[in-house]
Parts: sequence; C-alpha cells; structure tokens
Amino acid sequence: MDVISVIRTKRDRGRLSDEQIDWVIDAYTRGTVADEQMSALAMAILLNGMDRAEIARWTAAMIDSGERMDFSALARPTADKHSTGGVGDKITLPLAPLVAACGAAVPQLSGRGLGHTGGTLDKLESIPGWRASLSNEEMLAVLGDVGAVICAAGDGLAPADKKLYALRDVTGTVEAIPLIASSIMSKKIAEGTGSLVLDVKVGSGAFMKTLADARELASTMVGLGTDHGVRTVALLTDMSVPLGLTAGNALEVRESVEVLAGGGPADVIELTLALAREMLDAAGLPDADPAKALADGSAMDVWRRMIRAQGGDPGAELPVAREQHVLTAASSGVLSSLDAYAVGVAAWRLGAGRARKEDAVQAGAGVELHAKPGDPVVAGQPLLTLHTDTPEKFPYAAEALADAFAISAADAAASARAAIVLDRIA
Amino acid sequence: MDVISVIRTKRDRGRLSDEQIDWVIDAYTRGTVADEQMSALAMAILLNGMDRAEIARWTAAMIDSGERMDFSALARPTADKHSTGGVGDKITLPLAPLVAACGAAVPQLSGRGLGHTGGTLDKLESIPGWRASLSNEEMLAVLGDVGAVICAAGDGLAPADKKLYALRDVTGTVEAIPLIASSIMSKKIAEGTGSLVLDVKVGSGAFMKTLADARELASTMVGLGTDHGVRTVALLTDMSVPLGLTAGNALEVRESVEVLAGGGPADVIELTLALAREMLDAAGLPDADPAKALADGSAMDVWRRMIRAQGGDPGAELPVAREQHVLTAASSGVLSSLDAYAVGVAAWRLGAGRARKEDAVQAGAGVELHAKPGDPVVAGQPLLTLHTDTPEKFPYAAEALADAFAISAADAAASARAAIVLDRIA
Repeated sequence: MDVISVIRTKRDRGRLSDEQIDWVIDAYTRGTVADEQMSALAMAILLNGMDRAEIARWTAAMIDSGERMDFSALARPTADKHSTGGVGDKITLPLAPLVAACGAAVPQLSGRGLGHTGGTLDKLESIPGWRASLSNEEMLAVLGDVGAVICAAGDGLAPADKKLYALRDVTGTVEAIPLIASSIMSKKIAEGTGSLVLDVKVGSGAFMKTLADARELASTMVGLGTDHGVRTVALLTDMSVPLGLTAGNALEVRESVEVLAGGGPADVIELTLALAREMLDAAGLPDADPAKALADGSAMDVWRRMIRAQGGDPGAELPVAREQHVLTAASSGVLSSLDAYAVGVAAWRLGAGRARKEDAVQAGAGVELHAKPGDPVVAGQPLLTLHTDTPEKFPYAAEALADAFAISAADAAASARAAIVLDRIA
Repeated sequence: MDVISVIRTKRDRGRLSDEQIDWVIDAYTRGTVADEQMSALAMAILLNGMDRAEIARWTAAMIDSGERMDFSALARPTADKHSTGGVGDKITLPLAPLVAACGAAVPQLSGRGLGHTGGTLDKLESIPGWRASLSNEEMLAVLGDVGAVICAAGDGLAPADKKLYALRDVTGTVEAIPLIASSIMSKKIAEGTGSLVLDVKVGSGAFMKTLADARELASTMVGLGTDHGVRTVALLTDMSVPLGLTAGNALEVRESVEVLAGGGPADVIELTLALAREMLDAAGLPDADPAKALADGSAMDVWRRMIRAQGGDPGAELPVAREQHVLTAASSGVLSSLDAYAVGVAAWRLGAGRARKEDAVQAGAGVELHAKPGDPVVAGQPLLTLHTDTPEKFPYAAEALADAFAISAADAAASARAAIVLDRIA
C-alpha cells in the first residue's frame, strides 16, 4: 500500500477500498503519511466526495485509532447532544443539567470556538474556578454523582480525528460533508453514548448555508450512528438569526442561567426543550417532563452541582468587559432582519473568539441584542451593545455589522417569527 | 492576503487573481505557506484547472522567485529543447552537439530520472569522469567554447518550482497540465534561451496518454514561451513504443554515439533530425543542414569536446552490467506491439532508475531490444536482453514485461511503422 496510489484513487474519482482507508488513517495517525499528503487527499475528498460505505469505513478507522469509553456501568441511560455550531448557541449549558434532572446521564464532550462560532468550553471557563480538563476517571465520577458533565475530550479519543481536524482547519478542507460527518461521529461513537441528538444548524451563521446541505449532513450522521448501535436523531434548526440575545462567553453563561431560573429568551427555551425531549425519548425516558424540570428548579440544582464538581463557583460574579459601545436604531419601525454570521464575526472581532488555536479569548467580550426580527423599534433606541476589553476593536466590529440588520416601516405586515426547528431526521 | 482564502478560491472553482498568485508563490518559497497548504491548493488546481491568464501569472511568479540567466553576450543565437520524458529518450545526447555543429548555442539544463522515465544527467554520468554540476560561469564558458552544454540547473533558477515539484511528486499532484506547463516553462524562460523546441511525448510511455492532453499541454507551453519573447515550437511525438533499441543509462549513451557516428536506429535519427531542424529554424538558421553535420563527423567532434569540457573521457569504455538475461520469441511471425511503459518499468526495476530522489542508479542496467514492432521474428530468437548488477531483480523486471509484446502470424498484413512526429504546434 502506498499513499500516492490512495490519493490518486480519490483524485481520479474512484472509490477508496476498506484496506486503503484503514491503511491511510493508521499511517497518518502514526506519522508515516505526511501532512502534505493527507491534505491533498482531503482536498480530493472535498471535491470528489465519498459514498456512504466509504464514509462509514473512514469513521470506523478513526474510532479505531484510539480508545473507546464505556458508560455501561452507570445506573442511568446515556444521552448526548452535538451541535454543528452557530452564533449565540449556548444550548448545551442549560440542556445538559436539564436532561440530567429528568433522569438521563449526559456525557457532554465539548470543544472550543474557532472562527465566528463560539465554543462551549470557552463559555464555561468564564465561570471563576471552572476547569475543562478531566481525566476519564474524574469524568465518570462527575457523571455518576451529578448526572451531567461538560468537559474537553481526552487525547485518547479518536486521535486520528484530532490530527486531521487541525490539518483541515489550515488547508481550506473543512467544508466537506464526508469529513465533517466522520469527524463528529467518530468522537461521539468512541465516547460510548447510548443515544445522540444532533442539532444541525442551517443558515448564514452555520457551516451549512442551505437546507439541502444540512439535510445531507444530518442523514449521513444519523446513518453512521445507527450503524454503530447509537440511537441517533437529528433536528435541523435555524441559524439565520443568532440564538437568544447574546453572543459571547460570559454573556451567554448569564443568559443560560436565566433560562435555568425559569426566564430567558423564548427561542432559547424552545430549542432547549425540543432537544431535551429528543434526548429523553432516545434514552428511553419518553415520560419525563423537561418543562417541569425547568420550572421547579431541579435543572438549576444540577447546574450548580455540575459547575461545583469541576471547581467552579456557580454563585460568583461573572466577568464584565471593560468597555461598551451601543448601536442605536436609525429609524422607527419593525426590525426585519439580523444576520447571524455578521453578529458572530463582530463578537469574534471584539475578542470572544480566536483566530488561531493558541489564542486566548476574552471572557466578557461579545454582542448583546436588544431586539430580534419581528420586534418593534423606535428611532434612537439601543439595538446592539458591543462589549470588549480592547475598545480599539469597536470600529472593526461595527464594520462587520454595517449591513447586518434592517428596519421596515412599522405599517409593513409584521413577519411571523420563523420556526426554529425546520426538520427532523431519524 | 491569507492562504486559506487563496485555497478556497480555487476549491470553489474561482479564478486566482494576480495578487493571490504572486503572494502564494512568494510565501511558499519563503516558507510562510506550509507544504500541507500548497499541496491542498495543488490538488484543487489539478481538479478545477486554471485558465491561460492564471497559468501565465503562475509561471511569471515562479520565474520571479529566482535569478534569470542571460546569454545575450554570446556570438551565436541560442536554442534549447525540452522533452516531457519517455522510455529510451536519449535524443538530447546526439541533438545538442548536432545543433551546435550547425551554428547555434545549446544551453541544455537537464534533469534526473524519476519513475519509469530516464534522466539525461543519469545517462551522461555513466561516462567516466563526466560531471553534471557546473557554476553559471563554467556553464557560460563551455557554451561559448564548445557551443553546447548539458548540465544540471543551478539552485538559483526558479526555486519555487524546485520546491513545488518535489511536493507534487509525493502528493499525487504531478498530472496537472497547468502545473506541468508552468514548471517546465518557468525554468526554460528563467534560463534565458532565445528559442525553444518542445518534444511533447504521447502514449503509454509518456505522462500524456492521449493526443488531446498532449495537444493541450503543448499549446499551453507554446503560449507561455511566446508571451515571454521565446520563439517556441512543439512537436507531438509517439511514445507508445520505446525510442531506439535501448532503455538504460550507459546503453543509451552507446546508442547515441552510434547515431553521432552516422549509424544508429532509424527512429532515433529521424527524431533527432526533426528536432534539430526545428531548433535551427527557431534560432534563425533555416539553411543549416543537420543531416550533413551527422554524416561529416562535425556533430561527433562537438560531442567529444563537450564531454571533455565537463571532465569526461569520450573514448573511455562505458560500464557494462554484471549480468544479462535474454527473453526469446515464443513463436515466429511479426512483432506487432512492444509497450513503452512496460519496458520503462522493467529498466527501472533492473536499476536504471530510482524510486526516491536520493537513490543511486546503476550505469549498466537497462533493457536492450532486438526487434521493434513491424520486424519479422523467428521462434527462439532473442527479443529483449535485460541488464543489471542485481540479478535477483530479473523475475521482477520480467513480470513487468509479461504482457508487453505480441507476435502476429507472419502472413498477417505487416503494419506500417507508425509516424514518430504526430503533430506540430507553433
């Protein structure tokens, strides 16, 4: 077996054989296949595709590159969630304790933000004392005691994916459905969850800009999970508008705690409950009532215990950015659009995200929204507040927002708010 | 400017701008753009193509990555030749002294073999004492004194191409017409020749397997040369059968000396004269008579002086392989086919070529042909003689030749020998 023949097969629109896939993933993990060879193969896959059987084998080979975790000793059924990433997507924060409060165990291995989408670990790290890295033993202990844990994936899980993901990020080969699907699913299957709900985002603020692409990604992932014995369901959800009223690390933690306290924005509550119901269903707990667990404070109790188990102080003051800058409405009327991608880029430029993996993020930075599409606005009222520790970035962030929103005359027919859940694939 | 946006432009079937091309070639040469990023871009170029203007700019950027040579002080007009590589293609050896004998100066920067095609420098190095590496000053001195020089390209010439060629070789991105054309032409234009004849090979033993691909490559290269003020002509020539009766380093030198002595195989003489006429025409010497220069020994005189000027002894015995193995005809009739690629692979396996750039080659190894397609053969007569210092390779080489030739019944209509020059593009 040699790497050039593998690259040529895909370059010339052929099918990769099981042997070729097993060999190239193993050789890349061990360093026998070089980065410049794998990136050429990744580009060929991006442009020429892989069929379902190739994607399944590619995923299996990445799982086999590392260890597999085992939650079968837990008393509760496990349910995990994965989001393909969006702007203001803090749903994991209220969702994990909520589902745990309803009786499932939620082993939530999460990532950091890169580019315009935020990362769950970055958000939680704005809570004083909270730490993302746990050993496998610590993770299992928190999961057993509290019922939910949100932490970084260990180095032993799908190391081939870790290496390949970092490579794709710097070689323009991220946006390939076979590679996205196998990357997500290899980690989730190796993690050992019994059921999995996928939140596949669609729209300007998501990786998948069209419903067709999102549907293809979702059905590919559902197929992979099902084939590996994981009960897997996908919801396609709207990401043309930011979720909730905040994008930024501490800002999103604050909003998540509001939801756990029984308040918070309607769209965040709606999506949290929709995903919780899917997770509980998939975990074999269809009679659980997540709305009640939000209302009666039991989800908040799990949140506090979960944060405390990882060294965090759930009662501590959250960091606030040193400077604020308010953008106001130029006219009166109805806010008719608010672009998720632009808000994500603005939050990133303000310091909430990172350009390189090794960069630090600002806990307090981000964008706060004072209206969502469909809301009436009055000329001069605040529309957006920008938060940052580095105020020299305000113009740069404002530039990203220049065409991000529009106000229609108040007598225009008020557009109905778009549905959040667009489709369900099982 | 950032590399990912450049990669994405080509990945998404866009045109690279002049600024993107200049930037990425310069940044790659300096090491700011990494190998894994350039290989992803090369694969995107291979699969999505480049238009004429992009190829022209890419070539210009590679020329600008290094120095340019200048032959304008020479008394004679300069003419160079480039072959895209084939099996038994020793034409440069008789051609350079022949054209010099007719009044042009021939600055022939050559390469080494890789894979199944041989390299001119490897062949000449089988002459005791001959050395391939000259300084620019030495090269100019030999060219001025002798009229012809065959040597390795210096490190200062198109360093971007040197780096990119090595990368393409290990990433399955060699077979892209825009990259092949710009690689060849950047070196030839930087070298500073006034005129250039391209020998674009077509057939099983060539990189271009079809006439259509060869024509596209040839017209791309002719356009690039012309745009840079180099009088450029291309001949498309047959490479479905090996050239001459030998493939291997010292074996081919011996055959080349036969041609310079007025003998040698008809196809080698025919192609040498055809290319010589084109070079002399392009150099403004249309009245020169290369057939006469072969016949009267003046080309042989230049050969001897050229070899001597680079430390070689033109009268020395050439190396002979330690072991020979003869393949005989199984039946009587007419040799109806003899596959160039199979012969090239066999010669390579016998030790005439290298698998990696750092490998050494055997001077005496190779394949000797005792018949060419169209020749009558008698059962039991020698068809091929294999030469090597490592006889354990005989079965491995014979395996490559298993389906390489066929013998038809003698009463079958004798097929006319195919023409060598298939087309001319100017």
